[in-house]
Amino acid sequence: MLLVIKSGTVLTPSGPIEANVVVEGERVVALTEHSSTAFDERADRILSAEGKYVLPGGIDAHTHMEMPFGGTFSADTFETGTRAAAWGGTTTIIDFAVQQKGTSLLSTLDKWHEKADGDCAIDYGFHMIVSDVNDATLKEMESCVDAGVSSFKMFMAYPGVFYSTDGEILRAMQKARETGSTIMMHAENGIAIDQLVAQSLAEGRGEPVQHGLTRPPELEGEATSRAITLAGVTGAPLYIVHLSAAQALAAVAEARNTGQNVFAETCPQYLYLSIEDLAKPDFEGAKYVASPPLREKHHQTDLWRGLRTNDLSVVSTDHCPFCFKDQKELGRGDFSKIPNGMPGVEHRMDLLHQGVVAGEISLARWVETCSTTPARMFGLYPRKGVLAPGSDADIVIYDPAAEQTISAETHHMNVDYSAYEGMRLRGRVDTVLSRGRVLVENGEYHGSPGHGRFLSRDLCQYLN
Amino acid sequence: MLLVIKSGTVLTPSGPIEANVVVEGERVVALTEHSSTAFDERADRILSAEGKYVLPGGIDAHTHMEMPFGGTFSADTFETGTRAAAWGGTTTIIDFAVQQKGTSLLSTLDKWHEKADGDCAIDYGFHMIVSDVNDATLKEMESCVDAGVSSFKMFMAYPGVFYSTDGEILRAMQKARETGSTIMMHAENGIAIDQLVAQSLAEGRGEPVQHGLTRPPELEGEATSRAITLAGVTGAPLYIVHLSAAQALAAVAEARNTGQNVFAETCPQYLYLSIEDLAKPDFEGAKYVASPPLREKHHQTDLWRGLRTNDLSVVSTDHCPFCFKDQKELGRGDFSKIPNGMPGVEHRMDLLHQGVVAGEISLARWVETCSTTPARMFGLYPRKGVLAPGSDADIVIYDPAAEQTISAETHHMNVDYSAYEGMRLRGRVDTVLSRGRVLVENGEYHGSPGHGRFLSRDLCQYLN
Amino acid sequence: MLLVIKSGTVLTPSGPIEANVVVEGERVVALTEHSSTAFDERADRILSAEGKYVLPGGIDAHTHMEMPFGGTFSADTFETGTRAAAWGGTTTIIDFAVQQKGTSLLSTLDKWHEKADGDCAIDYGFHMIVSDVNDATLKEMESCVDAGVSSFKMFMAYPGVFYSTDGEILRAMQKARETGSTIMMHAENGIAIDQLVAQSLAEGRGEPVQHGLTRPPELEGEATSRAITLAGVTGAPLYIVHLSAAQALAAVAEARNTGQNVFAETCPQYLYLSIEDLAKPDFEGAKYVASPPLREKHHQTDLWRGLRTNDLSVVSTDHCPFCFKDQKELGRGDFSKIPNGMPGVEHRMDLLHQGVVAGEISLARWVETCSTTPARMFGLYPRKGVLAPGSDADIVIYDPAAEQTISAETHHMNVDYSAYEGMRLRGRVDTVLSRGRVLVENGEYHGSPGHGRFLSRDLCQYLN
Amino acid sequence: MLLVIKSGTVLTPSGPIEANVVVEGERVVALTEHSSTAFDERADRILSAEGKYVLPGGIDAHTHMEMPFGGTFSADTFETGTRAAAWGGTTTIIDFAVQQKGTSLLSTLDKWHEKADGDCAIDYGFHMIVSDVNDATLKEMESCVDAGVSSFKMFMAYPGVFYSTDGEILRAMQKARETGSTIMMHAENGIAIDQLVAQSLAEGRGEPVQHGLTRPPELEGEATSRAITLAGVTGAPLYIVHLSAAQALAAVAEARNTGQNVFAETCPQYLYLSIEDLAKPDFEGAKYVASPPLREKHHQTDLWRGLRTNDLSVVSTDHCPFCFKDQKELGRGDFSKIPNGMPGVEHRMDLLHQGVVAGEISLARWVETCSTTPARMFGLYPRKGVLAPGSDADIVIYDPAAEQTISAETHHMNVDYSAYEGMRLRGRVDTVLSRGRVLVENGEYHGSPGHGRFLSRDLCQYLN
Repeated sequence: MLLVIKSGTVLTPSGPIEANVVVEGERVVALTEHSSTAFDERADRILSAEGKYVLPGGIDAHTHMEMPFGGTFSADTFETGTRAAAWGGTTTIIDFAVQQKGTSLLSTLDKWHEKADGDCAIDYGFHMIVSDVNDATLKEMESCVDAGVSSFKMFMAYPGVFYSTDGEILRAMQKARETGSTIMMHAENGIAIDQLVAQSLAEGRGEPVQHGLTRPPELEGEATSRAITLAGVTGAPLYIVHLSAAQALAAVAEARNTGQNVFAETCPQYLYLSIEDLAKPDFEGAKYVASPPLREKHHQTDLWRGLRTNDLSVVSTDHCPFCFKDQKELGRGDFSKIPNGMPGVEHRMDLLHQGVVAGEISLARWVETCSTTPARMFGLYPRKGVLAPGSDADIVIYDPAAEQTISAETHHMNVDYSAYEGMRLRGRVDTVLSRGRVLVENGEYHGSPGHGRFLSRDLCQYLN
Repeated sequence: MLLVIKSGTVLTPSGPIEANVVVEGERVVALTEHSSTAFDERADRILSAEGKYVLPGGIDAHTHMEMPFGGTFSADTFETGTRAAAWGGTTTIIDFAVQQKGTSLLSTLDKWHEKADGDCAIDYGFHMIVSDVNDATLKEMESCVDAGVSSFKMFMAYPGVFYSTDGEILRAMQKARETGSTIMMHAENGIAIDQLVAQSLAEGRGEPVQHGLTRPPELEGEATSRAITLAGVTGAPLYIVHLSAAQALAAVAEARNTGQNVFAETCPQYLYLSIEDLAKPDFEGAKYVASPPLREKHHQTDLWRGLRTNDLSVVSTDHCPFCFKDQKELGRGDFSKIPNGMPGVEHRMDLLHQGVVAGEISLARWVETCSTTPARMFGLYPRKGVLAPGSDADIVIYDPAAEQTISAETHHMNVDYSAYEGMRLRGRVDTVLSRGRVLVENGEYHGSPGHGRFLSRDLCQYLN
Repeated sequence: MLLVIKSGTVLTPSGPIEANVVVEGERVVALTEHSSTAFDERADRILSAEGKYVLPGGIDAHTHMEMPFGGTFSADTFETGTRAAAWGGTTTIIDFAVQQKGTSLLSTLDKWHEKADGDCAIDYGFHMIVSDVNDATLKEMESCVDAGVSSFKMFMAYPGVFYSTDGEILRAMQKARETGSTIMMHAENGIAIDQLVAQSLAEGRGEPVQHGLTRPPELEGEATSRAITLAGVTGAPLYIVHLSAAQALAAVAEARNTGQNVFAETCPQYLYLSIEDLAKPDFEGAKYVASPPLREKHHQTDLWRGLRTNDLSVVSTDHCPFCFKDQKELGRGDFSKIPNGMPGVEHRMDLLHQGVVAGEISLARWVETCSTTPARMFGLYPRKGVLAPGSDADIVIYDPAAEQTISAETHHMNVDYSAYEGMRLRGRVDTVLSRGRVLVENGEYHGSPGHGRFLSRDLCQYLN
Repeated sequence: MLLVIKSGTVLTPSGPIEANVVVEGERVVALTEHSSTAFDERADRILSAEGKYVLPGGIDAHTHMEMPFGGTFSADTFETGTRAAAWGGTTTIIDFAVQQKGTSLLSTLDKWHEKADGDCAIDYGFHMIVSDVNDATLKEMESCVDAGVSSFKMFMAYPGVFYSTDGEILRAMQKARETGSTIMMHAENGIAIDQLVAQSLAEGRGEPVQHGLTRPPELEGEATSRAITLAGVTGAPLYIVHLSAAQALAAVAEARNTGQNVFAETCPQYLYLSIEDLAKPDFEGAKYVASPPLREKHHQTDLWRGLRTNDLSVVSTDHCPFCFKDQKELGRGDFSKIPNGMPGVEHRMDLLHQGVVAGEISLARWVETCSTTPARMFGLYPRKGVLAPGSDADIVIYDPAAEQTISAETHHMNVDYSAYEGMRLRGRVDTVLSRGRVLVENGEYHGSPGHGRFLSRDLCQYLN
């Protein structure tokens, strides 16, 4: 099967170029200039992208499909979640295998392989959440790297659940340094936050906005600084997940200026939503409960700037949907029982394209933060993250002139609300290919569970 | 003429990919995967790059060919200088048209067109040095932009020659803001420096090292900060040329963290040489006299880090050669009379490749700082700076395994010494194409004066 | 004559103590505890200060009496100005001798001695404004220091009038380093500002608020940084006068963190007034024209903080009054012709006491910033700035419970308006002594011209 | 009893003054000028201080007398320790009552009162070490403040012993904010350090220098930043004890620039000794084991600068002596078992006077950092920390011209070694008074246990 995508504007992380993209089987085999007809006669299909962008499929490096949390599971399965991702122009996710305390990393990885195998619409990789640091699990980190899982997430939040002490973090970072792997950090001072939460509940204040007020941005800044110091002492590469606060950004920027291997991602919800959403009445704020919490609006300005300056290198979603009904409602009257997480995997590409429309970021940065950099950061480049000969044919044709409105009624995620309900967008995904197969075209879905394959990943490609 | 460069490792600013590069006429028409034979039968020539790097030709954004300075001229003409550049894998230079006080910008531009036209081995563009700021020249800046000269250099150094006052800088920056063009700044506090120079000479200390000692790095830092403030007040894009001092780098990094449109380049001499070279006895230090001066060695560490963090975005040469004999010797006994400048256009690509060998920068950053970023910074992308369908076929095949030794006896610049005499290098330029024409191959030169054409440039593509 | 001030709360820069102050002749001869009667029977007079503060007389280190400016003179003579100072609890001023270009420093000093001699109600010293830097005047700086004038003011503003180039500043700083004297700096980038002023006038915008808009705070920050760099290069002590902008404060704070000998003062007008006053209609804004200009209100928050952190060490007035009628009016329609300066010498102690009332500063900082630190900064301690045995009996008894309202109708400065008209204040000067003589008591003035004597000053006592 | 100390140079925190100090009973009743004879005829004794300094007695705000640590006790009792302090010109100590987990604060305070009562040669106060944070102890903090114990020390080091979690710290800080009291922090990341210690021992490296290597300065900087953030979130005043590392100083300086109520002390050992001492062979390094550990020498430069800039406000000793024999020796082969602490209470005034001799600090800063500021910081001013009418007559007459050599053979601390053995000093304590009683004179000791009284302290007097 030979496919030529003709006359589009190919977006690269260095800027747009005018080129045709030639796909044969699962891979891109050539880029040619618009006027070239070299592959036309052999082509099985010629697809015009005139007036449209052609870009490498999005890579969402932070999702949680069917993740166990507080007695329930995030509402998207690998099947529904990856299908929604595909609809939104994301052709790779990196999800998290979640070690339970007392279990091994490798058995955890097996379990997650089992969950995802045969279900995914698009390619996927895993990070490993390390909850239990001991001699055995540290040793297993080496095997994980060998098995294509080269990044390990730890938590300075959630004491009693995923929380690791600074000593455990230090040990895991030493192993990361040794293996070249990356430590991903949920950086909030959970120990201090738990006191504020307890005090809030003791005072009878259990409404959703308290979720935000008990997790002040200073405590994200603090934890970020601490993680950076521990990474500095050990020499480990560090990647701060879902950065939401100006204070944390300042810490990252300062470390990056020194050349330390420190990276950070933010998420669309921190760019567009705020604590005002958390404060919506009638428990509607619960829809916006995630950690770190949505912040005061002025943080948004800083985050957009961080995307421009590359102090924020990646945009992921932290997609972790819980239905309002039955799930979010578990926390009525006690915000600490609201499952933490928001849906988002479907709209990341669109939402960041709004940043282009609004002049916040360039086309180059759109592609870079949403596709190329995640690929390089997590050892997938140049297989993913770029349209080049030899790359997987994960391709999005994007119509910048189209318009759409986000709504739970039309989205494809398995969740009963949208955090962006009614938001009007410029631009829309037109066509999506995964490894040469058309998944989405003309508003119809042609994918199937099991098309997506596990991606064994290399190490981070940015290390100094 | 159809040429296929086969089996090389194509270097992109995002990392290496394995691809063939197909050239037809003056342009790249396709990239294909190694196994592709799609263009083979039509090919006039197939050139194997196996085991070698294939990269976009270097862009040296800062050269001074046959520049008048203190009664003499820099020793390379456009003919000799661009030929040397080609030998070294640089296929584009951006040189400086030098306005004399009392003359117009456009007549200056005409004069420089005349100088270069028909002489260049490779493509070239111009920046405009603005020495005389007045209503007429400010107006002419608009015409310059229309004429493809979208960047204007000013001097905070050299009072009485190129020096502009802060008021003149402010006015030019206002015009830059208005036109979207870039102000390039030689940032040293020349007014203060002149006092130190006068004092040194009055004390009878006229040896070359005094050139360095009378231009302390703090005064480069100060001027850099001042230029940044003026750019901030006016909203102009600012590009700091030949940054040499840690203090200046700190100022740039701080501004870039705020998202201001501030950029900087450094040069190989600041990465490899130091004030110890300036202190060489028997007037040999004169070979190393350039402004800003070579610094204490510890600055080198900071500059390499700046290249990694992108606070230094570009490596240029400030190529401005003066022969030791007769030219540098004008300053025997009075360092202030030594013509300022060093040769370098030929060795930039090689010297920065040493940074790759030494682990200071990645292959991606090598290409980015030496080719892609200058192209984007100065409005040449994607015509230059990238190997993509539609780009000019300015291509370097680089042999990373070869070895060479720099020497004035073997270099091609028209100057009687090398600042890097005897330095052993890993890697060597193998083949060089300019707009599809082979200029260098098998150690032989196939170029000719006049092949190179003037490049009309767009605006900077990095602006926020 | 032996006088005992009994039962007051003596304010020291370390905090209040309960003590009697014993004055004999011109000096303090003892401090005793409240219950002590040791000096009572010898006392000629016993003055109760019960419920009141007893503090060392205020030192205003920045005044301009009868200063020539733009063809007119500031409206207070040494006689009227020092009398008003005394009314306000200030018992020492340090005024500025103003070198005209082409004249010598010593003849300037003679002229100022002549102006002040026999006219002053309180003691006074001089700083020297250096307008003309050359070999002769640099040499004269040594003589000035010998003559008790140990601080030299220079201007980065006012090109063509007081402006010094960076080279001249460098030379004067070298001499300051050599003599241990202090360079005081008016830090605004006058060269750039002049362009903005000319553009504003060319656009027909001549109203007073343009005075503020054409002198943006960034250009004060820039000049402050530049002065700090030049002081660092030369090793000179530096004192930034009338700091008004957050940007400048940040530069000072950064330098002070490094231990550099950098100090700064602010003035009451920058703590209480803002650019909104400059924007008052009907040319009333002219009353508030001074340089640097009044800033946006948010700078006030930073300045108060600076007073607390000691990044601002001194509060002076920059007292330089021009009557609204005839003087300020010179600039109707052309703000650049409005004489620069505001009255203030009478109200500094009161206005800063409001900072105590409002909780911005402590009593200790009130005394420190208004009396003790100026004394130490300018070589008058312990003769001035403290109440201790041996000190001059410059004493203010201050009633913290009294109230007053500022008005031009009741003030004693020779100027037809007040910048604080109608402002209600807590606290009031009760009694003022200068070298043991009662100048103000029970709302009556007992001073006389010529009581005040010239103070030969030592070097700054803060140098590291 | 009326005593006049005549003709000395009285040191104040603002600089020296020439005055006599008149003492009656326990208090200073007057300061008079040198020529005054007002009190002479009533005087019981006249003591000449000609050519000598007269200064307020030293206040050592950080001592540990007979402190339980790891199964042993620090070697100085309140009796021996305060006597040694008196010998060295320190007339007030603030020691630490040490809460054991599971006990109450008030019973702890009782126990410490019992220990000290009747034993001390000089006045003393207590800070309270809070090891066990719970509702009851938080409530007791209020009672402590009422009982004159207005400062509470917590530990981020020593897990399992004194360590508090960030949540406990947060709660205690909330209570400190509420009561106006101060949290003192031992800021080292003990959780991470414990891992490094365990690794070092597991690798068989048990020698004393490992104590330093396993406690890197970055982990002091981190903890300091964290404490500052927690103090910022809660609004509590924060005092960092025994700051030793440049990284921690940078964090303090940054916070102080923002006006936050953050203060820090350093100790003589960090100013004069280094990790090279810890590395002395034959277990001699054990003499220098304290936490934080001695650092690389370059930190000393930063600490002296911090004393000048007031980012370090206080010099205390952390006096906590353990004999080399039997006590330090507990840790042969396992540095983690070496009792942490060094002797120093006797030599602080002398060692800091060396800083004056060396030009590192002024006389004013000597008195300020060693006496006046501790008094104001810990609510003892103006009773202590200043020589003024009404102050306690805690007075040191210091001979700046004398010389001495430190040695364990001649010191008065109850410990078998000196950390400064053989060090030659300029200056020596001549005479010491505590509340009007001569304790040391002519090289003889006239004090007695029980003269010293407990000092009920007010709140910090520096709060913004």
